[in-house]
Amino acid sequence: MHVLIVGAAGMIGRKFAGAIASSGLSGTGPVEQLTLVDAVTPETPAGFSGEATCLALDISDPLSAPKMLAGRPDVIVHLAAIVSGEAEQDFDKGYRVNLDGTRHLFDGVRQLSLTDGYCPRLVFASSIAVFGAPMPDAIDDEYLTAPMTSYGTQKAIGELLLQDYTRRGFFDGLAIRLPTICIRPGLPNKAASGFFSGILREPLSGKPAVLPVEDSVRHWHASPRAAVGFLTRAATMDLGPVGHRRVLTMPGLSATVAEQIEALRRIAGDKAVALIEPRPDPDIIRIVANWPRGFKAERATALGFRAESSFDEIIRIHIEDELGGSL
Amino acid sequence: MHVLIVGAAGMIGRKFAGAIASSGLSGTGPVEQLTLVDAVTPETPAGFSGEATCLALDISDPLSAPKMLAGRPDVIVHLAAIVSGEAEQDFDKGYRVNLDGTRHLFDGVRQLSLTDGYCPRLVFASSIAVFGAPMPDAIDDEYLTAPMTSYGTQKAIGELLLQDYTRRGFFDGLAIRLPTICIRPGLPNKAASGFFSGILREPLSGKPAVLPVEDSVRHWHASPRAAVGFLTRAATMDLGPVGHRRVLTMPGLSATVAEQIEALRRIAGDKAVALIEPRPDPDIIRIVANWPRGFKAERATALGFRAESSFDEIIRIHIEDELGGSL
Repeated sequence: MHVLIVGAAGMIGRKFAGAIASSGLSGTGPVEQLTLVDAVTPETPAGFSGEATCLALDISDPLSAPKMLAGRPDVIVHLAAIVSGEAEQDFDKGYRVNLDGTRHLFDGVRQLSLTDGYCPRLVFASSIAVFGAPMPDAIDDEYLTAPMTSYGTQKAIGELLLQDYTRRGFFDGLAIRLPTICIRPGLPNKAASGFFSGILREPLSGKPAVLPVEDSVRHWHASPRAAVGFLTRAATMDLGPVGHRRVLTMPGLSATVAEQIEALRRIAGDKAVALIEPRPDPDIIRIVANWPRGFKAERATALGFRAESSFDEIIRIHIEDELGGSL
Repeated sequence: MHVLIVGAAGMIGRKFAGAIASSGLSGTGPVEQLTLVDAVTPETPAGFSGEATCLALDISDPLSAPKMLAGRPDVIVHLAAIVSGEAEQDFDKGYRVNLDGTRHLFDGVRQLSLTDGYCPRLVFASSIAVFGAPMPDAIDDEYLTAPMTSYGTQKAIGELLLQDYTRRGFFDGLAIRLPTICIRPGLPNKAASGFFSGILREPLSGKPAVLPVEDSVRHWHASPRAAVGFLTRAATMDLGPVGHRRVLTMPGLSATVAEQIEALRRIAGDKAVALIEPRPDPDIIRIVANWPRGFKAERATALGFRAESSFDEIIRIHIEDELGGSL
């Protein structure tokens, strides 16, 4: 089994590669070969005993796809993207990487498919950013995509391309729409969604955090561990039962900021909660008002995808995976 | 007022240009200038008293957009496309014209917009081919796009791009999803949908026609005259009330083949109906089973778009517009 991860240096990419190094891809036998691609050279995950090829490539360059596909990977996981804020600031760069880069990858696979019948599993990380206001509180699996950012537009286009290329038989594709990942490890960043993680991660480490919105704000979350589980399942499951609609909204937890804070209080006490400073930010309030609050995710749930069912669980996963198991 | 029609040599393009030549664009003052573009040189519509520029251009060539936009048209109507069957047979050509060509046009406008604030009205002809089975009998305005052809995929991508470019302020866009146009004038063609027009058009001219499906098949129709009305309204209406979701499913008539045939009988008698020969075609039956049967089209109807309410009306329009007013 040979796995290619495009976007392997990002947070999810590193965790997914690490999971492969430690446990393989369940149900598919051992992973002997990893090809890891990102804009900067990705690191081979600790403990990986197979052959790893780490490449720094610009996916918007049409010559990159043949290089990353040279070893005919059995499974391709495409996570690479210019993130929402940057795709909004730099229109050309967002389209070049998120649309053209995705298309070059898909077309690279198609060329090999036309040459010799190559037909890998291809998992594309999409996003709930394909949805835009107005939306019901719980969006069903048949709701229209109406993105309100260029990033969301590019992800929605990737979903359409993936389904057409799959229908044509060029690869066996599945697009999964990831919830907002919480708790993101690492340093605070300037993403508009950063506070959802920050108000938990920082107090859990004894540091202050800013809350820029009302605590009644409701959003859709899953842990980094759940995201790795989604990718693993998407990479290995039988896609027959998915049918021809190859886009699945992943399950998650719909929770308000107040519910996040109460979970923090239960696990880390009033002292941790006191580190959260409410400081309303009109820009972030305006942006977040257009974000989804929840989903039904019935198809993905029926297909065995699982996320957390409480914020207590999400916080405990962070403590286990990032803080050595205890506060 | 300067109007650019891309795809001006097609059936709808010629009718729309003809309507401009005879009546202008209602509510916007006279049209002094027409730029007509197609893969073959379009003809200036009879009776047009303004300045017409007719260009044969390949829209998939990035150099074409600056040429067609040189005169800074106030209104751009983009009808050009490789049709469904051909886009399915020639994957590269379909993507090159329907996706890249559309993007080149949008980017050409964007470049001018960035240079000098140019911001034309841009109407994009989309299609009910963006939908795919399974579907409810009456699809609402919030139903997902799930195309089952490359053509439908390319149209859905065009809709997404149009909305993002509009949101960014590069142009003032509206995508309208046209019903199947019935009765298409001209010769029978090999499109899978051709019989919907053929079973009326041919008997109305005393010629035989083949019906390849059961007469219980239900589909979504509007006349060529209604299509010209949709384009005219989209080109001239105030888009404020449309809001940020700039894709509208046009109204139409949901009718079964049996209802089409009964309208033919009322207008042209049993003799005309007797010219229809049922000859089931398994390929066409299979394709048509995945097509939409009807829509609610509530948003477009509330915004003043109008189609026919009976097949009698659709047949009478054909007799008026194509057969000189009588049988």
